Amino acid sequence: MEGDKEREGVDINKQEMLQRKKNAVLVDGVFLNGPIADARAGEKFVEDACKIIMEEVIQKAADVTEKVCEWQPPEKLKKLLDLEMRDTGEPHQQLLQLCQDVIRYSVKTNHPRFFNQLYAGIDYYSLVARFITEALNPSVYTYEVSPVFLLVEEAVLKKMIEFIGWNEGDGIFNPGGSVSNMYAMNLARYKYCPEIKEKGLSGLPRLVLFTSEECHYSMKKAASFLGIGTQNVYFIKTDERGKMIPEELEKQVQRARKEGAAPFLVSATAGTTVLGAFDPLDKIADICEKYGLWLHVDASWGGSALMSRKHRKLLHGIHRADSVAWNPHKMLMAGIQCCALLAKNNLDLLKKCYSANASYLFQQDKFYDVSYDTGDKSIQCSRRPDAFKFWMTWKALGTTGLEERVNRALALARYLVDEIKKREGFRLLLEPEYANICFWYIPPSLRDMEEGAEFWEKLHHVAPVIKERMMKKGSMMLGYQPHLGKVNFFRQVVISPQVRREDMDFLLDEIDLLGRDL
Amino acid sequence: MEGDKEREGVDINKQEMLQRKKNAVLVDGVFLNGPIADARAGEKFVEDACKIIMEEVIQKAADVTEKVCEWQPPEKLKKLLDLEMRDTGEPHQQLLQLCQDVIRYSVKTNHPRFFNQLYAGIDYYSLVARFITEALNPSVYTYEVSPVFLLVEEAVLKKMIEFIGWNEGDGIFNPGGSVSNMYAMNLARYKYCPEIKEKGLSGLPRLVLFTSEECHYSMKKAASFLGIGTQNVYFIKTDERGKMIPEELEKQVQRARKEGAAPFLVSATAGTTVLGAFDPLDKIADICEKYGLWLHVDASWGGSALMSRKHRKLLHGIHRADSVAWNPHKMLMAGIQCCALLAKNNLDLLKKCYSANASYLFQQDKFYDVSYDTGDKSIQCSRRPDAFKFWMTWKALGTTGLEERVNRALALARYLVDEIKKREGFRLLLEPEYANICFWYIPPSLRDMEEGAEFWEKLHHVAPVIKERMMKKGSMMLGYQPHLGKVNFFRQVVISPQVRREDMDFLLDEIDLLGRDL
Repeated sequence: MEGDKEREGVDINKQEMLQRKKNAVLVDGVFLNGPIADARAGEKFVEDACKIIMEEVIQKAADVTEKVCEWQPPEKLKKLLDLEMRDTGEPHQQLLQLCQDVIRYSVKTNHPRFFNQLYAGIDYYSLVARFITEALNPSVYTYEVSPVFLLVEEAVLKKMIEFIGWNEGDGIFNPGGSVSNMYAMNLARYKYCPEIKEKGLSGLPRLVLFTSEECHYSMKKAASFLGIGTQNVYFIKTDERGKMIPEELEKQVQRARKEGAAPFLVSATAGTTVLGAFDPLDKIADICEKYGLWLHVDASWGGSALMSRKHRKLLHGIHRADSVAWNPHKMLMAGIQCCALLAKNNLDLLKKCYSANASYLFQQDKFYDVSYDTGDKSIQCSRRPDAFKFWMTWKALGTTGLEERVNRALALARYLVDEIKKREGFRLLLEPEYANICFWYIPPSLRDMEEGAEFWEKLHHVAPVIKERMMKKGSMMLGYQPHLGKVNFFRQVVISPQVRREDMDFLLDEIDLLGRDL
Repeated sequence: MEGDKEREGVDINKQEMLQRKKNAVLVDGVFLNGPIADARAGEKFVEDACKIIMEEVIQKAADVTEKVCEWQPPEKLKKLLDLEMRDTGEPHQQLLQLCQDVIRYSVKTNHPRFFNQLYAGIDYYSLVARFITEALNPSVYTYEVSPVFLLVEEAVLKKMIEFIGWNEGDGIFNPGGSVSNMYAMNLARYKYCPEIKEKGLSGLPRLVLFTSEECHYSMKKAASFLGIGTQNVYFIKTDERGKMIPEELEKQVQRARKEGAAPFLVSATAGTTVLGAFDPLDKIADICEKYGLWLHVDASWGGSALMSRKHRKLLHGIHRADSVAWNPHKMLMAGIQCCALLAKNNLDLLKKCYSANASYLFQQDKFYDVSYDTGDKSIQCSRRPDAFKFWMTWKALGTTGLEERVNRALALARYLVDEIKKREGFRLLLEPEYANICFWYIPPSLRDMEEGAEFWEKLHHVAPVIKERMMKKGSMMLGYQPHLGKVNFFRQVVISPQVRREDMDFLLDEIDLLGRDL
C-alpha cells in the first residue's frame, strides 16, 4: 500500500531527495527520477494568480467606475504585451505580471456597462462551476471518465425539454449555437434520407432549406459546411418587425418543389440577432406539417424567455418544433459556451445520425450500463461539460431566480425604450419585442435636416465615430451595424443582473456626450 | 463622472440603500432599483469554492495515495448527488457541499495514475490561464471584444507553423481535433471546387478521400457531416505497425479514378489513437503531389513530438502537408480543449472558405484594422480563446521545457516497454513508436494454454474484468479495447510530468494483483 512518503512534491524531505537520486534510471537520455513538476511551486503560483483574478476581474466586475476596456490598437498592444514564446521559460513573478497585463488590456465582458454582445455580466455560480471544470479537466464522452458531468447533462437536458413543452426528447451540449444549428440541419437531413450518412449528397436532388432573411449567419455557414450549398438556403421575407412571413414561406416551399428540388427543413428564429424578433412559430409549424418539413427553431438567443411565465408567449408554438437550439450562455449567463441542441424525437435519432462506434472508447463489454456513454451522439470526440455551469446557476437561483433575471432584463429594456422615446436626438428603429433595443442617435447638426439621401449618408457615419470614442474612453461598449437597408444604428442588449436603471440613463447621456458635436 | 459611491454591491451604505429605494421605478411589474446580484456575497462564494478546489482538486493532484476515482454506478450516483433543479434556489452552504460532492465523485484526470485517455495530469500554467479566461469570459471573434486573446492566438499559430516547418500559413483553434479534421476536409473540398460552397454537392461526381484503417473515427463522422458520405472514405491498409501502406494508397486512388469518382484528399495520421503509429508522410506526400490531392495530417495526438528535436523525425515530411491538426491539450497538457487546425496556404483560404460576412459583427467601417477580426474564418460564432492556455504554458516552460516533457513521456514509455518484456504474463502487442503501449496481461491460468481460439476467447475477457476491479478500487485508470482482429488489450498512455518511473512499476504490479486469479 501507499504511505504518506509517497505524497510526491508535497512532503519531499532531503532524505527522500537523496533516495530518489539513488534510484534514478537513465532511459533514452532522460533521468527518470521522480516527477519533474514541482507541485508545491505550482500550487503557490495558482494561489497567487487566483488572488489577482479575484481582485482584478471578479471584484471589479460590479464596479462601474472601472473601465470596460483599456483600448490599444493592435500594433501598439503587441508591443505592450510580451507575446513571444522563447526557448527558456520565465519565472513566476514575470508570469504573474503577464497575467496582470492580459487582464488589464482585455475587455471586461462582466462589466455592468458591457452591452456589446448577446452575453454579458458575471454569474458567480456558473463561474465556480467553470473553475471546478477547469481544475478537474474532464471530457464528457464516457461515463467512466465523466460520471458526474454526464448525469448533470442528462438532468439539465431533461429540464430544458420540459420548458420547451415536449413530453420526451434528447439533446446534446455543443460549442456554440452555430454548431447546434448544424446539428439540427444534419438531423433533419438524416430524417429526410438516412442513406445520406453513408452515400453522401452526390447524385441526389438538390436539398433546400428555408429560413428568414433575419436569421443568424450560421445558417449559411452550416449549409456550406454540410455540402448543401448557400444557394440552397431560401431566405424568406420578414415583416416590418423582422418576423418571417408565413405566406412567403409557403410560396418558397412551392417554388422549390416546382424546381424539382427537395425541401426538407425550415429554420425559424426565436430572437433574431439584430432586432430580437420572434418568428410566428405556430403558423410556421402548420406549413411544416402540411409539407412534411422538419421544423428547427433557432432559439439560441430567445430561448431563455421560456424561463419566464410572463414572456414565454414570445415562443408560442415551440413545442411543435422537431429541434431547438438554445444557449443558456446568453441571457442566463452560464458563460461562453453553453449551448444545447434539443430534439423532440427520442427514437435515438441523434445516436443513429452521428454514431461511429469507436471501439477504443465505446467498448460494449463494459461493466456498467453503456447507454450512459453518450459521446457517440456528438460530432466531437473530447467535449466540455458545459451543462454543468448552467446546472450550478439553476441550483443556486432556482427557476424563480432565473425567471426574475429574464423579467428584469426585459423590464430594463422597456425602461430604455421609454427613455429613448422621451429624449431629443434618439430614435427607435422599431418597437422591440425582446432585449435588443435598436436606435439611432441623431446629433444636433442633423436634427433639422430633411430626411433625404444626405441625411442618411451622414447618419450612417455617426455610430462608428461614437463607438470609437467610447472605446478609447472605456466608459461602455455597445454595438452598431447597418442592417437590411438601414444605415448604422446602435443595438443595445440588456442581460446582466448587475445592470441598474441608472446604467440605462448613463448610456443615453454618454452617447449624447460623445456625439453631440458630430 | 462616476464617484466611489457608485461601487455598487461593494460599498453600499445605509443611506445609499434608502436613496435607491426612493429612486425605484416599477416597469412591467419589476422594481428597477439597483442591481439584483449581491456582489459581496457572490465574491465570498467564489472565494470559498476556490478554497475547496485548491484543496480537493489541485493539491491532491500530485498525491498518488488519493483515489483516481470514487466509482459509483449511474443509478446509485444519481441518488448520491442532488441533481434536481428546483423552483427555489439553494443557500451557499448547500452549494458548497454540492461542489464537494461533484469533485468527490468525479474522475481525477489530473491524478498521476490516470492513464485512460490521450490527455492527463495537471499543468499549473495552463490552469491559471483557464481561470483567467473563465473570469473574463471572452469570445474571440473580433479584436474589439478580445484584443489580447486574438493577438495571442496569432502568435501561437505562428509558432506552431514554424514547428511544422512551413514558411507561412494560417490557422484557427477549434473545439476538438474532430472539428479540426472537418475543417481540413472542407478546406480541401473548397480548394478542389470552390463552387461547392454556394452550390453544394448535389449533381457533382462522388468525392472520395483516403485515410488509413487506423485513422481516428472522426474521419467517418466528418465525411458523414459534410455530406460526402462514409462510403466515400476509402480506408487504406496498414502494415503490422499500423502505418498506412503507400502502395495501397496509390492503388485506391487509381481505383477511385477508374470508378469515375473525384479523389480530392488524403488524410494521413501522425500518432494513431490506439497504436500510436505514424504514417510515412514523405511517401504519402509524393503520391498526393502525383495525383494532385490535398494532404491533411491528423497530428492531433502525435503533433507534440514536433517540440522534441529527438522525436520530431516521427513526423518527417509534415512540412509537405497542406493542413495539419494538432492538439496541444494532449501531450502538452493545455487543458481540454486546445486544438489547432493549421493550413499551409496563406492566400486567405480559411477566410474565403468559411466567411459569411455578418454585418452586425464584422463591420467594415471600424476604426481599427479589421483584418484582426478573425472570427469569420470559423464555423463558430462565439469561440473560446484556447490558444491562450497553451501560450501561458509555453511562456512558463519555454520550448526546452515542453521538449523535456515530450522526451520524458517517451522515455517513461520506453521504460514500461522494457519492463513488460521482462515480466512474466505481460506481452506487448507491438513495439511502440510513441507513448501508446499496447499489451496483454495473460493470467497464470492461461499461460500454459495453447494459443488457439479458446485462448484468445478467454484472454478477451481478462482486460474488462481487471478494468472493473481497478475502477472499483480507484487505484488507477487505464484503457482497453479490441482492435482490428486483436482481442481486448490494454493501452497505456504516458503524458503527465507528475508521473514517475515508480508509477510504471505500480501499473504492472497492480494489473497482476487484480488479474492473477482470472
